[in-house]
Amino acid sequence: MLSKNKIKLIKSLSDKKTREKENLFVVEGNKAIYDLLTSGLKARTLVVTPKFLVSLSDENYSADEVIEASDEEIRKCSLLKNPQQAIALFPLISSVVSPAQMKGKLSLALDTIQDPGNLGTIIRLADWFGIENVICSEETVDVFNPKVIQATMGAIARVKVRYTNLPQFLAECSELDIPVYGTFLNGDIIYKKELSEEGIIVMGNEGNGISEAVADQITDRLFIPSFPPDQPTSESLNVAVATSIICSEFRRQHFIS
Amino acid sequence: MLSKNKIKLIKSLSDKKTREKENLFVVEGNKAIYDLLTSGLKARTLVVTPKFLVSLSDENYSADEVIEASDEEIRKCSLLKNPQQAIALFPLISSVVSPAQMKGKLSLALDTIQDPGNLGTIIRLADWFGIENVICSEETVDVFNPKVIQATMGAIARVKVRYTNLPQFLAECSELDIPVYGTFLNGDIIYKKELSEEGIIVMGNEGNGISEAVADQITDRLFIPSFPPDQPTSESLNVAVATSIICSEFRRQHFIS
Repeated sequence: MLSKNKIKLIKSLSDKKTREKENLFVVEGNKAIYDLLTSGLKARTLVVTPKFLVSLSDENYSADEVIEASDEEIRKCSLLKNPQQAIALFPLISSVVSPAQMKGKLSLALDTIQDPGNLGTIIRLADWFGIENVICSEETVDVFNPKVIQATMGAIARVKVRYTNLPQFLAECSELDIPVYGTFLNGDIIYKKELSEEGIIVMGNEGNGISEAVADQITDRLFIPSFPPDQPTSESLNVAVATSIICSEFRRQHFIS
Repeated sequence: MLSKNKIKLIKSLSDKKTREKENLFVVEGNKAIYDLLTSGLKARTLVVTPKFLVSLSDENYSADEVIEASDEEIRKCSLLKNPQQAIALFPLISSVVSPAQMKGKLSLALDTIQDPGNLGTIIRLADWFGIENVICSEETVDVFNPKVIQATMGAIARVKVRYTNLPQFLAECSELDIPVYGTFLNGDIIYKKELSEEGIIVMGNEGNGISEAVADQITDRLFIPSFPPDQPTSESLNVAVATSIICSEFRRQHFIS
């Protein structure tokens, strides 16, 4: 039985300040919850239909509290149009990632991404392309926003997200000789440029691109060409789309089948 | 002065049936409206701030009706969180595209894409990659849904979108020897496969992928590999993200700088 207070708590977690105060975030969706539980995270609260509970075996989850609820009760606290059979509350995950940990691998850095769907989609594709770390400027939308969590489709269980002073973090990476890539209209065409297996790919804000302070830290400028090159087209690509094209090209150049 | 009836009309166009009855769709955003007007489309109604009107010269737009409005009035009929300085109503665009017109070029086909943001983002990236035609199954979300139009960011002015019986359309393309590509888990790795300059790239529904009737028409199966290949990762990529990676790879293989 789901209490009124619990419903109120769940709904209140769409607000960032409340998430920080309660040290909790909401995950909806059977697959996303399953991914988080099986990655070893302990849920504070699991609100589940009897049917979903049966699908979880004792070995693969740990939770402080399991509340059985009807579909109707789940609908009451869901933020989704089509609620699924489970809602979970997890303690906020804090990821500490240092510039030294960027050595020898590919990472993403986000300079003030504002749309929750874009951030979630980027975390999901980072997971697909084996990118373990996403470094966000402090102005980037909160990763624990329910819309972000939803769009990650469970990838939040595998990708580390850290918020930090981005220009400073990138400067420290440069000092360690880690290349810092960014896309600019005057950049080198990605298809023709030799891309390294180590590096940080910086993606800019939806409207304004990469900020000046971050641009100063870019060591390699890239460009995704439109086709055909001389024809009028859209001014830009959606940021998640651009991120995916760049990540795919980095992986393609070193692909061993 | 914006009448109450006009505000009511604009708001009612978020409903598909009303759009069809009135033969109108809504475009918001200075850039998107500018793109449609300068592509030669005549607006039925332009609701603009005096400032935006000054930015349009007489030569580059045509409208049956121009209504000057305050920011406050525009906010009243806007569907956006941050309304811009113009809202326009255009007659619905009907695109008739035949299988024969698919010869010699790259096109996209969408099998029941449901999310308006995904459809809009796909139209925007089609524009970027010089894809003129997007063929949609009849079950795909309506392109004139305001959220779709918004996400195209003006690309709707340059990309033709046709709704049709998709399996039948693709069968007719196959008869014309046009390759029909689709992504499947058992497909050939896109980075290793020779991709043609002519063809139709089919993308499937967000949850269910490509339907059986459409799958029967696919001549070439593709796969975007995750990295590293043997590590647990997300089950899939967002459909707009997957579309962009595939389109980029088709263009890269024939790229001449």
